[in-house]
Amino acid sequence: MNNQTIADLLVLVRQKRPLVHHITNYVTVNDCANITLCIGAAPVMAEAPDEVEEIVAVAGALVLNIGTLSSDLIESMLIAGKAANSCNIPIILDPVGAGATTLRTRSVKHLIDELDISVLKGNAGEIGVITGTGGCVRGVDSAGLTGDPVMVARACADMTGGVVVMSGPTDIITDGKCVILVKNGHDMMGRLSGTGCMASSLIGAFAAVSNSIPEASVAALATFGRAGELAGCDAKGPYSFRTALFDSLYGLTPEDIVMHAQIETL
Amino acid sequence: MNNQTIADLLVLVRQKRPLVHHITNYVTVNDCANITLCIGAAPVMAEAPDEVEEIVAVAGALVLNIGTLSSDLIESMLIAGKAANSCNIPIILDPVGAGATTLRTRSVKHLIDELDISVLKGNAGEIGVITGTGGCVRGVDSAGLTGDPVMVARACADMTGGVVVMSGPTDIITDGKCVILVKNGHDMMGRLSGTGCMASSLIGAFAAVSNSIPEASVAALATFGRAGELAGCDAKGPYSFRTALFDSLYGLTPEDIVMHAQIETL
Amino acid sequence: MNNQTIADLLVLVRQKRPLVHHITNYVTVNDCANITLCIGAAPVMAEAPDEVEEIVAVAGALVLNIGTLSSDLIESMLIAGKAANSCNIPIILDPVGAGATTLRTRSVKHLIDELDISVLKGNAGEIGVITGTGGCVRGVDSAGLTGDPVMVARACADMTGGVVVMSGPTDIITDGKCVILVKNGHDMMGRLSGTGCMASSLIGAFAAVSNSIPEASVAALATFGRAGELAGCDAKGPYSFRTALFDSLYGLTPEDIVMHAQIETL
Repeated sequence: MNNQTIADLLVLVRQKRPLVHHITNYVTVNDCANITLCIGAAPVMAEAPDEVEEIVAVAGALVLNIGTLSSDLIESMLIAGKAANSCNIPIILDPVGAGATTLRTRSVKHLIDELDISVLKGNAGEIGVITGTGGCVRGVDSAGLTGDPVMVARACADMTGGVVVMSGPTDIITDGKCVILVKNGHDMMGRLSGTGCMASSLIGAFAAVSNSIPEASVAALATFGRAGELAGCDAKGPYSFRTALFDSLYGLTPEDIVMHAQIETL
Repeated sequence: MNNQTIADLLVLVRQKRPLVHHITNYVTVNDCANITLCIGAAPVMAEAPDEVEEIVAVAGALVLNIGTLSSDLIESMLIAGKAANSCNIPIILDPVGAGATTLRTRSVKHLIDELDISVLKGNAGEIGVITGTGGCVRGVDSAGLTGDPVMVARACADMTGGVVVMSGPTDIITDGKCVILVKNGHDMMGRLSGTGCMASSLIGAFAAVSNSIPEASVAALATFGRAGELAGCDAKGPYSFRTALFDSLYGLTPEDIVMHAQIETL
Repeated sequence: MNNQTIADLLVLVRQKRPLVHHITNYVTVNDCANITLCIGAAPVMAEAPDEVEEIVAVAGALVLNIGTLSSDLIESMLIAGKAANSCNIPIILDPVGAGATTLRTRSVKHLIDELDISVLKGNAGEIGVITGTGGCVRGVDSAGLTGDPVMVARACADMTGGVVVMSGPTDIITDGKCVILVKNGHDMMGRLSGTGCMASSLIGAFAAVSNSIPEASVAALATFGRAGELAGCDAKGPYSFRTALFDSLYGLTPEDIVMHAQIETL
């Protein structure tokens, strides 16, 4: 894939305006809704077990995020996820804090066992823990993994049978065979709560309009990272950065992406 | 009513600082709290069934919003709503996503059956579905209705016995007889999550200080729409627009409203 | 204590980056997460009863906030709080709306009875109600207390056995004996939802790295208040103020604190 593919997918998201169904945490949910709008897609947040199947049936993607999980929420995720699988709607799973508590690690494994996950997107520590190769998670932040990140990401993809996105200063995207790196981004993204969750929302938006889940994931991360670079230019701190990040993503042109996306196929 | 009435009501909200009790969704709740503060009223969010009656008893209005509903939340809404009705406190109901799922449509009908709703505020699709004349809702967005919007809004008001606000580029406010249009607003309001919810919060603030529910509704929408116009002037995207929207509402003068409110009685 | 102590603690928070575990409300939770990041600490929000003990075990402080309480949430707070007490991790309790409803007053008293609370931080009305000397709370805002605020705060500290912070234009911090006033702050902080909750998060961050809970509390309030003063300079309204508040806290220098912290020991 090349930069033009990313630009084309961005145009396609804005044309098709796919519905992205979220079952997510209450900390960053507002930013997830707004980032989905900014890229040109339509967010819907719904978690009641009585309604998630109806929402999934008209959605283009399902984003599951365990940031503030409960047993009821995991049940809703399973119901929605099974509906998504039977409709061939891609599922993006964000295993926030896997490895930090037994509940989180166990819940993620349960979701992976029961559902076909199209994209598992976590930080290095989370992916290391889930893969079983060793990782360290402090609260919701990565504190590192054991071994080579690319090898761990590939092993994780072999395990889930889907695409794995390991987020970081350089993002690693792999389906177990092919590996693509995305180098766009800005330090300030790590100073703001919820940028990881927002990335998952954007992967959902792109996955809803693309035939290739790896390409959709790369496009989402490059687009988001590029918006971060533009936002970083005149930000005075995390909240002016946040404002600029959303505005930049909203105004991002296909031409800018063709010029500035930084992807590398290994 | 004329623009001076709106300006007078704005002054009254700021003088009386009414308490607006919300039982609402976790996506846009922070913006609802802050928009209530910006207009000069006092928000309180409380949903525990053990406490909602006590809160209602001292509130000036009750705002019910089903954006992220659950069966427990609907129960709390019924308890709070019955208390509000017995104290003659106006109830504003925002039927977010009615028509998108059976649960939402059924829950809204149940609330309308059990409670006296002072203002039902929804988008065109939601109001069409609730009225039974036909409407289409995609996620939480309107995808249109069947028939003439003004006729549907009037039929809906006949059904609820209260005021109906159908939001859109031109807002329609009716008690089933009189119809008033509000033409203030800005395109960017549709690019931001939660502007519909915020409008309901503002209707609550105005309804708490006015003897006329239709006038309160018109005043809320004209005021909010005018703040949007002012905010649109130098916004670079949805988040700088959001900042300017709240700041503009906070700084909005009665004089500006007298000059620029755009209302039309049909 | 003097201004240099505050500056040293600020540096220490940024060096140690303590994990601050929150069990809090869904209204202001995003701002609490981000303010914790802005000061240089790491937030984690987790409330599932199955995981709170594991989170507490690696946290530097536990912040309990009853802004949108439920019986389940109080149960989680008790489990987390007992774990915190047994690990000697400081607990900060924010009794949002105590006095406004029986449920809130009763829940706060139950938490104080069952747990060793390091810092109880409330507004004047809340502290008056909890102390039993008389206070008035309207929604989540103070409507005043009976008697002298300093005397009430001291009586409250005698009752809890910990530090009491009574927030207001001048903040009062006392362990029952020594009393320190913090005079930093800006009017606009009262126009924004959640500044009280954010103050509690910051007390958590400072308490996690300090041997003195009173000093940590003073440092948190002086730092936050000073960021508010800097933010107030060019804010046009509550939302541009919010952006500037977070940015200012993020960029606040120890030198500025040494120059501008306004504390007074009574």
